[in-house]
Amino acid sequence: MDIAVIGAYTTRFGELWGTSPRALAREAVGGALDDAKISKQSIDALYVGNMLSGILGGQEHLGAFFAEELNLSCPAYKVEGACASGGLAVHSAIAGVKSGQYRTVLVLGIEKMTDHTPEDVAIALMSAGSDEERVSGVTFPGLYAILARAHTEAYGTTEKQLASVSVKNHYHASLNPKAHFQKQINLNHVLESPRIADPLKLLDCSPISDGASAVIISQINMNKTKKIGNSENRLIQIIASAVATDTLGLAQRRSLTELSSTKKAGISALREAGISCREIDIAEVHDCFSIAEILAMEDLGFYEKGKAAKAIENGKTSLVSGGAIVVNPSGGLKACGHPAGATGVRQIAEIVEQLRGRCDKRQVKNARFGLAQNVGGSGATAVVHIFKSI
Amino acid sequence: MDIAVIGAYTTRFGELWGTSPRALAREAVGGALDDAKISKQSIDALYVGNMLSGILGGQEHLGAFFAEELNLSCPAYKVEGACASGGLAVHSAIAGVKSGQYRTVLVLGIEKMTDHTPEDVAIALMSAGSDEERVSGVTFPGLYAILARAHTEAYGTTEKQLASVSVKNHYHASLNPKAHFQKQINLNHVLESPRIADPLKLLDCSPISDGASAVIISQINMNKTKKIGNSENRLIQIIASAVATDTLGLAQRRSLTELSSTKKAGISALREAGISCREIDIAEVHDCFSIAEILAMEDLGFYEKGKAAKAIENGKTSLVSGGAIVVNPSGGLKACGHPAGATGVRQIAEIVEQLRGRCDKRQVKNARFGLAQNVGGSGATAVVHIFKSI
Repeated sequence: MDIAVIGAYTTRFGELWGTSPRALAREAVGGALDDAKISKQSIDALYVGNMLSGILGGQEHLGAFFAEELNLSCPAYKVEGACASGGLAVHSAIAGVKSGQYRTVLVLGIEKMTDHTPEDVAIALMSAGSDEERVSGVTFPGLYAILARAHTEAYGTTEKQLASVSVKNHYHASLNPKAHFQKQINLNHVLESPRIADPLKLLDCSPISDGASAVIISQINMNKTKKIGNSENRLIQIIASAVATDTLGLAQRRSLTELSSTKKAGISALREAGISCREIDIAEVHDCFSIAEILAMEDLGFYEKGKAAKAIENGKTSLVSGGAIVVNPSGGLKACGHPAGATGVRQIAEIVEQLRGRCDKRQVKNARFGLAQNVGGSGATAVVHIFKSI
Repeated sequence: MDIAVIGAYTTRFGELWGTSPRALAREAVGGALDDAKISKQSIDALYVGNMLSGILGGQEHLGAFFAEELNLSCPAYKVEGACASGGLAVHSAIAGVKSGQYRTVLVLGIEKMTDHTPEDVAIALMSAGSDEERVSGVTFPGLYAILARAHTEAYGTTEKQLASVSVKNHYHASLNPKAHFQKQINLNHVLESPRIADPLKLLDCSPISDGASAVIISQINMNKTKKIGNSENRLIQIIASAVATDTLGLAQRRSLTELSSTKKAGISALREAGISCREIDIAEVHDCFSIAEILAMEDLGFYEKGKAAKAIENGKTSLVSGGAIVVNPSGGLKACGHPAGATGVRQIAEIVEQLRGRCDKRQVKNARFGLAQNVGGSGATAVVHIFKSI
């Protein structure tokens, strides 16, 4: 069965004090329906990706909640897998279509984080981690700092190389009108920003953001259909969707220089797609911290272990390089922003827009294959999707 | 594609002060694997149904959490849909198999509610409801009392008829060694118990329980396989799995004398199964309050509107009646207990055990078709599964 994304829309990401979750959902879903040129009546099921609404907002049952808000009378699901909730919701929606139950499904990734104090958000985010990590008081910057230190010890990764991830992603975000941060930064800005968890500094970390993103997925016949309805949009085929898990806590892992869940999900996705990672032109990867992008580039097979940091430092994955692959053209979690449950859907919306050639100043030229990698916790869940422009 | 339940196990339900969620999960999953006579290595994915772990326990990411606890290295998902989380997890697991992605999947429904104060649990449960209901301070007994009053006004349903649901279900639970309550009660016990939300009394309400239940679902060829591996267990075919949604709040509904989500899910499930509701021999329905069982019997089509209460009062749905259908042979949510995320899985485990003929004192004779109906909130989500003994 051929499956494609037929519509995609992302709201502005940022500290959206004046916008409610309901308004974010309406904007994202309305935008995706307009983009697909279909009506609500064509939607057979709704999948909502969200992480923190229960803990921070006291509202669970978000499938039915947003179905009601959006005036949809179809079955509705909420899928939660920490910061991979969005990617998992897309993956579950694909299973809904492939199972033959639904023809056209809507995925909404949404998170409203800034209505709460940063302390409350930091505690709530640790609901993604292990008991030992939570009781020891560690938070996510600390966990990723441990990964950064292990990587530095093993491969000599430098603080400047880490910083170069943020510089690149801020540059990309400066070309993305929906990004949380639209300001370019330089290496000194990162290196001189306050240390959060050594070696990670403030500007190595993604922000706490609000935002929503929606995609519409449908069963299609690729031989017959290149466009949907009256839409001028090209369809973007989903050629792989894979999930893998690992232990919640770092202490139980065999290696601290890789995320084995990303490796496993990446290998299965490439196998399902029937392509090698050399064919991927663009990737949106889960750069919640600068080290995470370096790990992703290696774990997905784009670079050998210990080689990604240097490549990023040398600009090989930047829009300006014209190299083999552009990574996080949206600005990534670091600079486009990271509303937890929205991120995995937003990554996919970005790949779709890139493969359609509609990304204006941040457009990657001649992109044919795109990959999105979404991570939950410090790698306990990883979701990898691969898309093809047809 | 033929799909069957090949293993099922439910822990004791009750106030399990001495048992951790980890221990409950190990017992349920170990029991289901032993029942199916397969090893962990055969499990291709884990689906966890849970409602309150985030709000009450600060732990989300339960897919990866329980995958680690159970030493499973497969993809893992958490599915949340309030008190329908368990049924939705089974439904999602079926989609995972039908999509061709997995062959054999494990579903764990689990909830640990008694570690928290009843007040905290009541507030947390309202995370399933609408904003207006939450801010007005109403809790679930109040919402179902509104439904009971509307039913009484429309059809003359009496408090004695409501009470007869609880009496029947306590009788069934008295034959179920895993039930939360194993004590028979009579109509006077119910009618004289404290009024919680008029007309519902304490003994019209299901309890707050701890417990876990697991089922293993696998793709099979029904023509070739009647048993799995070395197991003596008969396979139980899943012939329908349907979900429907409605508004979260009662105020937005057209009717208060039915749950339209149950009606919609029931109609689609019967259509998928290709049978009429007259062929169903046993049903596990979501009797969170006595009125809910009456609504379910009517909304699923077993009785015309306004006729179910009298039939239940006359013992037509009891084990002792030998009538056309036995309802809640386990004791139901009322007396078997209601650990929110576990309930939908436990209902299915009961149907499986009944169709296999392994229910000892509470065995329904010659049952061939069984139905399970699981509800989230006051009917915003409904999940219906139908099973066939082969």
